[in-house]
Amino acid sequence: MNHPTERPAFQKRPFPAALLELLKQNFADRVSTAQAVREHHGRDESPFDPQLPDAVVYARSTDEVQTIVKLCAEHDVPIIPYGNGSSLEGHLLAVQGGVSIDLSEMNQVVSINAEDLTVTVQPGISRKQLNEALKDTGLFFPIDPGADASIGGMSATRASGTNAVRYGTMRENVLGLTVVTADGRVIKTGTRARKSSAGYDLTRLFVGSEGTLGVITEITVRLYPQPEAISAAVCAFPSMGDAVRAVIETIQMGVPIARVEFVDKLAVRAINRHSNLTLREAPMLFFEFHGTESGVLEQAQTVQDIVAANKGEDFEWATRPEDRSRLWNARHSAYFAMLQLKPGCRAVTTDVCVPISRLAECVEETEKDLQGSYLPSPIVGHVGDGNFHVAMLLDPARPEELEEAERINRRIVGRALKMGGTCTGEHGVGLHKMGFMIDEHGEDAVAVMRSIKQALDPKNLMNPGKIFSFEG
Amino acid sequence: MNHPTERPAFQKRPFPAALLELLKQNFADRVSTAQAVREHHGRDESPFDPQLPDAVVYARSTDEVQTIVKLCAEHDVPIIPYGNGSSLEGHLLAVQGGVSIDLSEMNQVVSINAEDLTVTVQPGISRKQLNEALKDTGLFFPIDPGADASIGGMSATRASGTNAVRYGTMRENVLGLTVVTADGRVIKTGTRARKSSAGYDLTRLFVGSEGTLGVITEITVRLYPQPEAISAAVCAFPSMGDAVRAVIETIQMGVPIARVEFVDKLAVRAINRHSNLTLREAPMLFFEFHGTESGVLEQAQTVQDIVAANKGEDFEWATRPEDRSRLWNARHSAYFAMLQLKPGCRAVTTDVCVPISRLAECVEETEKDLQGSYLPSPIVGHVGDGNFHVAMLLDPARPEELEEAERINRRIVGRALKMGGTCTGEHGVGLHKMGFMIDEHGEDAVAVMRSIKQALDPKNLMNPGKIFSFEG
Repeated sequence: MNHPTERPAFQKRPFPAALLELLKQNFADRVSTAQAVREHHGRDESPFDPQLPDAVVYARSTDEVQTIVKLCAEHDVPIIPYGNGSSLEGHLLAVQGGVSIDLSEMNQVVSINAEDLTVTVQPGISRKQLNEALKDTGLFFPIDPGADASIGGMSATRASGTNAVRYGTMRENVLGLTVVTADGRVIKTGTRARKSSAGYDLTRLFVGSEGTLGVITEITVRLYPQPEAISAAVCAFPSMGDAVRAVIETIQMGVPIARVEFVDKLAVRAINRHSNLTLREAPMLFFEFHGTESGVLEQAQTVQDIVAANKGEDFEWATRPEDRSRLWNARHSAYFAMLQLKPGCRAVTTDVCVPISRLAECVEETEKDLQGSYLPSPIVGHVGDGNFHVAMLLDPARPEELEEAERINRRIVGRALKMGGTCTGEHGVGLHKMGFMIDEHGEDAVAVMRSIKQALDPKNLMNPGKIFSFEG
Repeated sequence: MNHPTERPAFQKRPFPAALLELLKQNFADRVSTAQAVREHHGRDESPFDPQLPDAVVYARSTDEVQTIVKLCAEHDVPIIPYGNGSSLEGHLLAVQGGVSIDLSEMNQVVSINAEDLTVTVQPGISRKQLNEALKDTGLFFPIDPGADASIGGMSATRASGTNAVRYGTMRENVLGLTVVTADGRVIKTGTRARKSSAGYDLTRLFVGSEGTLGVITEITVRLYPQPEAISAAVCAFPSMGDAVRAVIETIQMGVPIARVEFVDKLAVRAINRHSNLTLREAPMLFFEFHGTESGVLEQAQTVQDIVAANKGEDFEWATRPEDRSRLWNARHSAYFAMLQLKPGCRAVTTDVCVPISRLAECVEETEKDLQGSYLPSPIVGHVGDGNFHVAMLLDPARPEELEEAERINRRIVGRALKMGGTCTGEHGVGLHKMGFMIDEHGEDAVAVMRSIKQALDPKNLMNPGKIFSFEG
């Protein structure tokens, strides 16, 4: 599939037999060059055709990652860190070949510091595995992208999810990292203290760097006490604009809602089918409130008033924990539910995020764009952050559908940038958003990013060909 | 004064007459080489002797800053951005001479976006000026270091203050920056969207970089709705440890307190004298609760229970706004109040921050250190963050007192680092903490910081001699 977004041509680098030999000496049967394994590691959830790494190595420790990086560096061979494979923008494609470091066996909790509300984990642990491990502590980790992504991958893409409106994103919640740098050094960034002014913020430089500056091998994140009370509700609106305006007022009033998710009519249909629910097929908001018993009641009352003033219907409550789980599982499955609307399809997913004051306008104009297109394109959104996704469902065998999806994507991104927003709120740049980096940041800011890449990875070994063009 | 902390020798660089001439052509009487002006700009609140810049230029716009930076870069002359001069660690000293860019005339609000809860300002505006400008919007900017620092300086040092436990630090609250880089480019980092995954986090790279990577000329920060209800209270404890243990439990319970400040007996005495208060001279906590009327009552009740279980006395309430202002003004004046305990003194201020579980132990061992010293050394702390300050009051004419202060400082920092903490929670590194950077981060992480500096400022023109040694 020929993808229309501007990006450097894929050019494979040599993969020396000597390197493969050395990897096998060190990692024995944890090195694979099998076609199926390489295909699995050379793709993600994006509609890009796979680009295969030359080999996959399953690492089990920071030391092992260091060994792989040093060996690859000696042989000028690219390195792509691989977590759960759930990225959406082509992050994992080995566009220049090289070694995919599979971190899924590094999925342990290193230490839970319940008293400090922190946990240190290996990168391959998934968000659900982490919360399972925390079950008996009374604490939880709130960041929840749709997929059961790895914490390493979530750090690398600066991920967020449905709870970000209350608890922030990976940017706010990663306290420190262990990173293997391109030249094979192991550094620790940050401390377990809640704040620090001691030098450059390397933690936040690596968070969101998409594997282009180093391999993250350990992550310390903040945890939160399980709220004393939780309640969730859904409500339908006559239009998308009304729903979004209710959200804007809620945010502007400073109500500390934990979650507020928008789901459009088509997405509700997909979710109903996939998760066996009977939600009304109308623009909907999903709310969740965290706090003390009385605090949650108070928040809900305030929000109900705002909803009513914006033509929303009465709340339907999901008060029992199992009903809440069902609701949020359905929301988290939305991406896969939407894919099932069109058998055999793939999705181009937009991910713009705009200042909240512009969100209603942005969503309404996007709706008009979509009405003018033949692609089924449901909308869901973390609207409390000003972030929403359109999943444009296309037949990968039909290039014109991909072109149509990209045409709409460009319109949506262009609009968001004009409104002071960003081309990606939480999915990252990968391959797919590279063409928008200069539009968003300007030539000079991208040049600064490039000079940081040059300083830390002059040979362009770390996940090359991602975020911005860079020759090394 | 000969300062014992490890740092590179001060070595002035040439200041060409041609540069002065060009600056005068461009800025006329806004260039000064007067001794008094240079002395004012070559010092801060630290006990370091002033190190004078060769000239001071008062800039009025980003374009003007760009002109100054370009001229200085052409002549290999250092540049030190100057806000309100309230830094505590020697940040502003012109250790290699050069031009101090005074940004105090760039003190305007560029735009208030009340609907988005953001404001864009010039760097010279102070936090009090900003909140004054926001008065009629129902919004406020919470970050409040002791001094009425400039927002530019607060960004450059990653400052926080008494509200950070609830609202975060400059790290969490700066959304975007305009920066003039060392080679005279103007870049914009970030957007007004609440989150983004679009490339390297340049915003957070410049936040906390202490002027060593560029000059910040515009800042967009998050604002918060004024809480519906606020209440404040103080309470005394039999010991410092008891007070801190009450705080630890409060944090671990997840009570969303807005402020919790520790003040020791000696600091209470200083505050009473300076601000005409009659607080009991005992270890005290100052609390503030923000929320709805009922939320604030509920928080206060929970915290009162925790306080009682830790031998704290009943709350004394400051319910009227004027009483609250008086209390917090007194707390904010603590630094100056403490200086008055010893006429003619200067203060070496420690600024460690540790994981909250270690805070009681850290504070109690610090107390023992101080009992073994002859320097009067009051303690205050943003204990909800695990951050506290000892102000060691010394006679600048007596080198042995400085040595004694540094001896204690090294013990305190060493202990904090062993506990997984940081040498500076909010003041920054400046000159004074440079010797701890490798202890805290390790050689390799500091080497990564240095390579970023090398990439962005190869000639070492931007506030040289700060944070870490770097030759350029």
